[in-house]
Amino acid sequence: MSVFSFKVVKELGQARLGELHTPCGTIDTPAFVPVGTQATVKAVSIDDLQKLKIQVVLANTYHLYLRPGVETIECLGGLHKMMNWNGPMMTDSGGYQVFSLGWAIEHGVGKVVNFLADDSREEEELKRQITVKTKSIIPRQKLCVVDDEKATFISHVDGSLHVWTPEKSIEIQGKLGADLIFAMDECTSPIHDSDYTRNSMYRTHLWEERSLVKFRKLHNKFQEIYGVVQGGPFEDLRIESAKFVADNHFFGNGIGGAMVTKSKMLEVLDWIMSILPADRPSHLLGIGGIDDILNTVGYGIDTYDCAFPTRLARRGGLLMLPEDGGKLLNRWTLNVVREEFKNDNSPLSQNCECELCSGGYSKGYLHHLYWAKELLIFRLTTIHNLYVMEKLMSEIREGIAENKLEKVKRKWLG
Amino acid sequence: MSVFSFKVVKELGQARLGELHTPCGTIDTPAFVPVGTQATVKAVSIDDLQKLKIQVVLANTYHLYLRPGVETIECLGGLHKMMNWNGPMMTDSGGYQVFSLGWAIEHGVGKVVNFLADDSREEEELKRQITVKTKSIIPRQKLCVVDDEKATFISHVDGSLHVWTPEKSIEIQGKLGADLIFAMDECTSPIHDSDYTRNSMYRTHLWEERSLVKFRKLHNKFQEIYGVVQGGPFEDLRIESAKFVADNHFFGNGIGGAMVTKSKMLEVLDWIMSILPADRPSHLLGIGGIDDILNTVGYGIDTYDCAFPTRLARRGGLLMLPEDGGKLLNRWTLNVVREEFKNDNSPLSQNCECELCSGGYSKGYLHHLYWAKELLIFRLTTIHNLYVMEKLMSEIREGIAENKLEKVKRKWLG
Repeated sequence: MSVFSFKVVKELGQARLGELHTPCGTIDTPAFVPVGTQATVKAVSIDDLQKLKIQVVLANTYHLYLRPGVETIECLGGLHKMMNWNGPMMTDSGGYQVFSLGWAIEHGVGKVVNFLADDSREEEELKRQITVKTKSIIPRQKLCVVDDEKATFISHVDGSLHVWTPEKSIEIQGKLGADLIFAMDECTSPIHDSDYTRNSMYRTHLWEERSLVKFRKLHNKFQEIYGVVQGGPFEDLRIESAKFVADNHFFGNGIGGAMVTKSKMLEVLDWIMSILPADRPSHLLGIGGIDDILNTVGYGIDTYDCAFPTRLARRGGLLMLPEDGGKLLNRWTLNVVREEFKNDNSPLSQNCECELCSGGYSKGYLHHLYWAKELLIFRLTTIHNLYVMEKLMSEIREGIAENKLEKVKRKWLG
Repeated sequence: MSVFSFKVVKELGQARLGELHTPCGTIDTPAFVPVGTQATVKAVSIDDLQKLKIQVVLANTYHLYLRPGVETIECLGGLHKMMNWNGPMMTDSGGYQVFSLGWAIEHGVGKVVNFLADDSREEEELKRQITVKTKSIIPRQKLCVVDDEKATFISHVDGSLHVWTPEKSIEIQGKLGADLIFAMDECTSPIHDSDYTRNSMYRTHLWEERSLVKFRKLHNKFQEIYGVVQGGPFEDLRIESAKFVADNHFFGNGIGGAMVTKSKMLEVLDWIMSILPADRPSHLLGIGGIDDILNTVGYGIDTYDCAFPTRLARRGGLLMLPEDGGKLLNRWTLNVVREEFKNDNSPLSQNCECELCSGGYSKGYLHHLYWAKELLIFRLTTIHNLYVMEKLMSEIREGIAENKLEKVKRKWLG
């Protein structure tokens, strides 16, 4: 019997409460997965993560492959032991870096959903703006080129050349030793047309098949693998890709790639979630905005990873609970960097129980720490933002359990 | 009755065990005082400091005056409340910045004892080398000029001009609200000759008298003031300055300034400690190397402040306990930055109980965090180094209490 299993405990519409069992523990889903790119969730310790009741973290295979390197991680006992994290862990495949170090760096774009705050502008207008933006950016040398066989990277650490194949990604992820790993894909850019996206999707399917073959060969019973649906914002491609993932023997469904707008993301989920096997856990790659989670949990998404709450924290952005005025309109964010908080001796929140809020640190002191470039602020704000994310997820789980998910959504969206 | 008092509990030769009572608590002496320049001990939280049993911290008046500014600190409830530290606190006078932003910046020198590891080279040779070094450095615009009335600073934060007087220093320190403050002095440079040092010392005495007058006028019973002995490496000047401090009604004796070599520092203490009133606490300003503390505690020094252990930590330097091989010869330092630790999966210490060592983090992981520029390392290494400093001080106190100080010195010096 496999040490891995996924059990849907309760359904409410398509939303579901689940238990994702791994050798390192059980993840109660829906769950948010903080990102620990380089084998550390930036600015916080494992002790901090445990106090925050973080259930699972995601590390980036390509980054760790470059630094400190697979051999070193093996010497240090694998990823879990090296970073002292004994809970469940995910690694990605390096496929996102194919995009972020390739097309993204060359054209100065992100995964569009991440930099678009709302959908009030029409999609075509957005595309136009992206194109304008793209053309106004001085082209930079991209660090990755792709063909059907492989991705070829120039290391952003030391300029060395690296060839990345699906087999290599799976082999490295095997050595890193995370519980849940991903098949290698190519993440497409929002500026790609349907032709490029279609060809890329077929390449992704080839890569995923090779990933799966390699994975099965390794016979590692302490690891399970997710497939990844690609296909950009195109309905026919998404459906085809979802069928591909469904038809192959993956443990979990990953949903990746560019979706152009937040409303397009919901459309994509509409197209694919009924195709993907419901008895597998579904992971939405790189998505974790508060509204994104609230709006997609009803489609049956079980886990989310995103650097947003921890990155926001390091820029002085503090997530606000609904009790403290957090809502869609203000993006749940209070930015202590702003001048208005300089002399503000009030605490951030009376409702939050994190180390920052219960410690009695004032907004004015945080403002000072930010501008004085003091290291303390990064940890305190990261702890706070992760606390808010965990609070969100526990309220969502409670909402599903107690048939009041809509109430939770209303409360948070404001 | 004053809420401040200093009680010598036990003497062993000139070394003494003391209790320094302040309104915010009692400091068991000898004690090490971590530096929190900008109202935070870099990289650690108040919770961390409390777990480390840190008794007292020192903040820098001039830095806080520039940023966030006195008005803001008052709005935020004073220094204690602003930074959430309810234990004893010291502030310096800004006198050290007269040196560090003036002569030091112009001539590229430090307080020599801080950059000379040993006294194996002769003093004259050292002076020659300093002069050579000084002349080879491209002169930089100094940010402070001094006359008998005042020090005039150009802010290193925004280039604005600030006039600093003894009265202003005391007034600002009053508003910051630390328990123990310092009279304003001019810290001289190791390259100053006896003429400059003599004139500077008289200026310091004038400034200290003015500091004292201003301090008494403020009638702040929640604050006490230290005088500061200056006079460089010159015997006649040091004796004259010690007499000045002794003859004036200061609560504590501060010992400041350049002493050129570590052995000269001991000579200076030989000259002055019998002159300074023994019923006052004595503070050695800016000194806190492990050997410096071990070698001066026998002269009757009660408290030490120094940025060294926390700064070393941020550069990847980890202090080693004697049990782990720490000794004078290796400066008690293991530097995880070095290549040899890349694949080292052993913990730093089996004997240290700090969060880093008890948490199971390996030297190889710390090496990775350092080179990956990950924020986590700064906090872990700072916690460790402060733990070692506290361990040193508690063993010194135990050594005095149990008449075995020499044994403690032998153990640590190796």
